[in-house]
Amino acid sequence: MTEENAEKTPVEKTSTEAAGRATGLSRRGVLGAGGAGVLAGAALGAGLVSVARADDSAAPTYGGRIPFHGDHQAGIATPVQDRLHFAAFDVVTTDRARLVAMLREWTIAAEAMTAGRPAGRGAVGGNVLAPPDDTGEALGLDASRLTLTIGFGPSLFGRFGLEGRRPAALVDLPHFPGDRLDPARSGGDLCVQACADDPQVAVHAVRNLARIGFGVVSVRWSQLGFGKTSSTTPDAQTPRNMMGFKDGTENVPGTDAAQLDEHVWATAEDGADWMAGGSYLVARRIRMHIETWDRTGLREQEDIIGRDKGEGAPRGRQKERDKVILEAMKPDAHVRLAHPDTNGGAKILRRGYSFTDGTDGLGRLDAGLFFLAYQRNVTKGFVQIQKSLGADALNEYIQHVGSGVFAVPPGVAKGGFWGDTLFT
Amino acid sequence: MTEENAEKTPVEKTSTEAAGRATGLSRRGVLGAGGAGVLAGAALGAGLVSVARADDSAAPTYGGRIPFHGDHQAGIATPVQDRLHFAAFDVVTTDRARLVAMLREWTIAAEAMTAGRPAGRGAVGGNVLAPPDDTGEALGLDASRLTLTIGFGPSLFGRFGLEGRRPAALVDLPHFPGDRLDPARSGGDLCVQACADDPQVAVHAVRNLARIGFGVVSVRWSQLGFGKTSSTTPDAQTPRNMMGFKDGTENVPGTDAAQLDEHVWATAEDGADWMAGGSYLVARRIRMHIETWDRTGLREQEDIIGRDKGEGAPRGRQKERDKVILEAMKPDAHVRLAHPDTNGGAKILRRGYSFTDGTDGLGRLDAGLFFLAYQRNVTKGFVQIQKSLGADALNEYIQHVGSGVFAVPPGVAKGGFWGDTLFT
Repeated sequence: MTEENAEKTPVEKTSTEAAGRATGLSRRGVLGAGGAGVLAGAALGAGLVSVARADDSAAPTYGGRIPFHGDHQAGIATPVQDRLHFAAFDVVTTDRARLVAMLREWTIAAEAMTAGRPAGRGAVGGNVLAPPDDTGEALGLDASRLTLTIGFGPSLFGRFGLEGRRPAALVDLPHFPGDRLDPARSGGDLCVQACADDPQVAVHAVRNLARIGFGVVSVRWSQLGFGKTSSTTPDAQTPRNMMGFKDGTENVPGTDAAQLDEHVWATAEDGADWMAGGSYLVARRIRMHIETWDRTGLREQEDIIGRDKGEGAPRGRQKERDKVILEAMKPDAHVRLAHPDTNGGAKILRRGYSFTDGTDGLGRLDAGLFFLAYQRNVTKGFVQIQKSLGADALNEYIQHVGSGVFAVPPGVAKGGFWGDTLFT
Repeated sequence: MTEENAEKTPVEKTSTEAAGRATGLSRRGVLGAGGAGVLAGAALGAGLVSVARADDSAAPTYGGRIPFHGDHQAGIATPVQDRLHFAAFDVVTTDRARLVAMLREWTIAAEAMTAGRPAGRGAVGGNVLAPPDDTGEALGLDASRLTLTIGFGPSLFGRFGLEGRRPAALVDLPHFPGDRLDPARSGGDLCVQACADDPQVAVHAVRNLARIGFGVVSVRWSQLGFGKTSSTTPDAQTPRNMMGFKDGTENVPGTDAAQLDEHVWATAEDGADWMAGGSYLVARRIRMHIETWDRTGLREQEDIIGRDKGEGAPRGRQKERDKVILEAMKPDAHVRLAHPDTNGGAKILRRGYSFTDGTDGLGRLDAGLFFLAYQRNVTKGFVQIQKSLGADALNEYIQHVGSGVFAVPPGVAKGGFWGDTLFT
């Protein structure tokens, strides 16, 4: 248990001092180290660092730094940042030692980047004849609340001497009615979730991990999310999804330790010692048929969701966080079918992001929700809820087109590395 | 010439008062109008509106409002906002009257959305049995410096009685060596460039125009940009592209009226009366082979670009904005070949955005630059420069994969509509 972890959602401003304390230079400092950039470094220093956001009142400072080390990986209970870059990787080596070496290298890079420092010796230092250790597009940007969270997919456990280490809780997801999963957007031996307030910082982080992993891993699929649709902070406003509604109000708040222990953090008793303090992640790319939705009447939209559109209040109530009256909703309303009371108390921690990835060749926007659900037990969490949603009136307007399930190991102690409880 | 246009880059805070002055309700106000949301509306009101950004010092207030009306369309000389959603449309009707009616409807919606108001009667008002006039996902968000800019592609001018109205300056782009253009990411009868500080606001705007245009237009392709790579404000820091470099320092600043007149704003003498005060847009989707770039040595990267990576100073100089010494660069350096002095004084106004659209099926990120060049004369601007860049050392690392050229008509006066100089 590290000092950072003892605090509640602790964050430091990425001041030059704070970044400089660590082993490397800050991204801003490294500009100066390049020789010519002292003035530029100073001028850039006044950016986003301490801009408070009134719409996320319990969140750490916008643009600041979130500690990498702790009992749990950051990026799960952490207040949801504005942007996402999620990547799934295939492991392309057969050499366990190379994979472990890469995980160690990744950890060092993740420690640096989440602290607002460049990877390695940076983008401009070192031997000018060699490729830089950092790709450079985040030079001058601050830590931006970057979190990097790693997970291991089922396919990893048939190799590398990991046979027998697959947690029982890491189930293969069943086929759900309506699923139309694209293999090119599904699965993966590893995943990395990068969340940050600045998308350039999230993209930079994934790209640099991919660069470091060259020859060991290959990007299988990746997803950019431009708008968060969840808040893990109970007193913050719930953002709206691409249907124009607030959703996910009843999910586990990242600030509620008791609920996190009950619903999110795995223990050794859940089937794998090495996963104690970790969690299980289900990622689903959910395409929304927004053109059809947009031609649906307001009352019908509200009946389908089970909330009013303006305020987000459950049917029959006045405010978003008023207690839900399930009987006031239609039997096939989304909120009713997803609600814990309909699912034997099942709850997940949700980090969802909207996406828009161009068009689908039929004149329609390829848009929807990239849904990230963290839970202690996939069968009792996502699978239970998704089975219930088989009757969801919303299914006419959505389709699950990508899917992944990952064992997200516990947090890394100082000196440790991502996955060390599994690989050592 | 409207009152707003008389000011320099004028912006109003989207206070309830400012939004309320106009014909409709603000997006926040409409929550209240929905009946249950008065408290929510007030709570949301304290968001991003007036958060100044030190890295863009000459820019209007971050999150504020940019006037829609004026001699020129907003979104060209306007200081570059953080995010982009660009969409090209095919016109699917053969009925000129329907097309014109849609352009009138689009204009009314654009006036509302750029002012931070919902389209039409909003997402929750009106007849509950009818689909809402606004899709709702931007409810509670402010204007976010949203600009909407329309353009007309060459293919529009063969129909609708527009034969003979095609400006001579709206040339078809020649094939350039190395082009590998995907028809599914090229062309279009119309385009809309949506720029905003919040991507949800930009995506919302394009989506609502597509919804309003149902039956008249169909989305042909669209592109999300997550990170601006240009600044049209000379004293702001130039952002970095996905190669980690600053680029475009020498382009036309949006604050320099003489340069805008010389290089950007079309006049009647440029070949079409109806385009006076407009401009010509070239849009190129430029894929970067970032994995190859990332394995290139630092000095070689700097030689290829012609600037140092840390500061962005031209070869042989100390600071980004020091005068370029072309002879200090290699003959095939990017900056040298793109420089006005190499191209008979040719200059463009540049609004570029980075993109990352998942992966390419070969384990590589589909990432690069979505390049938007505005100019008075495409042949003397983009075509001249791009021909010169045929010898660019950078060509080993990039590929143009999408392309469009559009006549961007002049600004709209109050009571007018997008394209009224062409269609009336």
